[in-house]
Amino acid sequence: MTRNECAAFLRAHDDYLILTHRRPDGDALGCAAALCLGLKKLGKAAYVLPNPEAARHAGLLLGTEPPAGFVPGAVVSVDLAEEGILQINADEWKGKIQLAIDHHPSNSGYARESLVDTKAGACGEIIYELLSDLGAVDREIATLLYIAVTTDTGCFRYKNTTPRTLRIGADLMEAGAPVDLNRTLFMKKSRSRLALEGTIISGLEFFQGGEAAVAALSIADVARCGATDSDMDDIASIAGSVEGVELSITMRETKKDEWKISVRTGQYGNAGVICAEFGGGGHGMAAGCTVPGTLTEAREKIKAAVAAHWHELPL
Amino acid sequence: MTRNECAAFLRAHDDYLILTHRRPDGDALGCAAALCLGLKKLGKAAYVLPNPEAARHAGLLLGTEPPAGFVPGAVVSVDLAEEGILQINADEWKGKIQLAIDHHPSNSGYARESLVDTKAGACGEIIYELLSDLGAVDREIATLLYIAVTTDTGCFRYKNTTPRTLRIGADLMEAGAPVDLNRTLFMKKSRSRLALEGTIISGLEFFQGGEAAVAALSIADVARCGATDSDMDDIASIAGSVEGVELSITMRETKKDEWKISVRTGQYGNAGVICAEFGGGGHGMAAGCTVPGTLTEAREKIKAAVAAHWHELPL
Repeated sequence: MTRNECAAFLRAHDDYLILTHRRPDGDALGCAAALCLGLKKLGKAAYVLPNPEAARHAGLLLGTEPPAGFVPGAVVSVDLAEEGILQINADEWKGKIQLAIDHHPSNSGYARESLVDTKAGACGEIIYELLSDLGAVDREIATLLYIAVTTDTGCFRYKNTTPRTLRIGADLMEAGAPVDLNRTLFMKKSRSRLALEGTIISGLEFFQGGEAAVAALSIADVARCGATDSDMDDIASIAGSVEGVELSITMRETKKDEWKISVRTGQYGNAGVICAEFGGGGHGMAAGCTVPGTLTEAREKIKAAVAAHWHELPL
Repeated sequence: MTRNECAAFLRAHDDYLILTHRRPDGDALGCAAALCLGLKKLGKAAYVLPNPEAARHAGLLLGTEPPAGFVPGAVVSVDLAEEGILQINADEWKGKIQLAIDHHPSNSGYARESLVDTKAGACGEIIYELLSDLGAVDREIATLLYIAVTTDTGCFRYKNTTPRTLRIGADLMEAGAPVDLNRTLFMKKSRSRLALEGTIISGLEFFQGGEAAVAALSIADVARCGATDSDMDDIASIAGSVEGVELSITMRETKKDEWKISVRTGQYGNAGVICAEFGGGGHGMAAGCTVPGTLTEAREKIKAAVAAHWHELPL
């Protein structure tokens, strides 16, 4: 459906229940909360289904949870590519999602109606445009959407940033999103996160002439850093931040002699093909798999797979 | 002068020599090169005086150096707050700068005419608007100005980012600035830089209940990391990146028993007042000084000054 048709849908229905995805990020939760508050401004009843995996982002959903016995009139998903990754407590809504608002090219078309705009760097861009058309953006909504947009675009640094992203960022600042958010969200790190980053960086092993790097975090490393799940966000990107590294591997020990491996690629190698060798999957530029063995065994296996697929393109 | 008057100045003169400041950053050099290329597009002769301290940004000035015997018709400075910090090889031009284009509130009015716009997060914003008015923005100029704007605003993350900054970023992307620049400029780091960051982070000492932190880099640390001057950019910001830290101190040993100290503040303490105790200076939120002594002696002195001024506001 078009943006106009989607806005008309939002005007026409009532009693909204908004759903997000597993391990939700700032884009998913910021969009859900902003859409909920925007619909309320239009005089609708609207709630977000609490997401038990919201972790450190849980605060974004404060005050949006449905009352006991709430019967939805319209079930909407945001930032959800497929029902298989729907939030873990929403099984009853599978097959019943009436509207999907999403930006993933892989959106499977699970909803009765869908507004899928794959040119949007963040789902927050789409929600902003909708709520702006509906005249429902206020300071709180602008703040939530600024979190959404900057989360998915690395605060305007990732490749998915477009002129549209930057202009929406400008609009959101003018609507009241505080610029201090950037400092809190992107420039401050917990001590345990910094210790984790230090461990990854100091343990980097380079190969393929320095164009590939592998980092490992053992269970003992994580414990020594005092790190928790909320410190683990996007740790796979750290090894790839070294100048000259085009393919990076991050290994995390999940239990004794078992390693969860993330592969990220730039110019060389297809991450999805490399991980498929170990029964994993993903995309050309980002994929994951699990490899058993000691650190040395697992590392040599994944390094060999990288070498074997070095000249395959990520896309 | 107004922006219109400044554009009229640029149209009216010819044979430009463009000057920058000591230890120039991406904003100064990106502005100088962009202004030079823009003036050439208008049919003018224009050059940038090579800056011997350009370090890793030197490439921005390629092809802009004046021919031997060039006699300027108009001397212009960009991003230069005062003649005291003029690039080290430009003494002959002191007192002779005809036009200053700058965004520093501290601009001393050294030039015959000045366009000082203190609301601009980067000087690149002002140069973009001028060249846009003059119809002189092309792909190469857009790229240089994108580097200028993102350098001074931390790629749209610092507090000086405004809606205007983001909209100019959007315009520059549309004019051809490649989004990959963000990855190269802000997300890739040399191995020696990463080693340096690791050293700072692992050596952090917290005080004032964890709201202040001090880091030290000895001459031996720098040598062990293989770090050069180009790895030192903005190292003072690293200690302040820890969650909960409102005041950070970075100490760098410049020669045996002498420490160059940078103080950065958020909510507590006035960096300028603290550094003034040791004969240094700066602003409320960022200042520097030199303190003699062993590491322990110098660290205790600066910590005592921080404690003494803890309740003074940075602004």
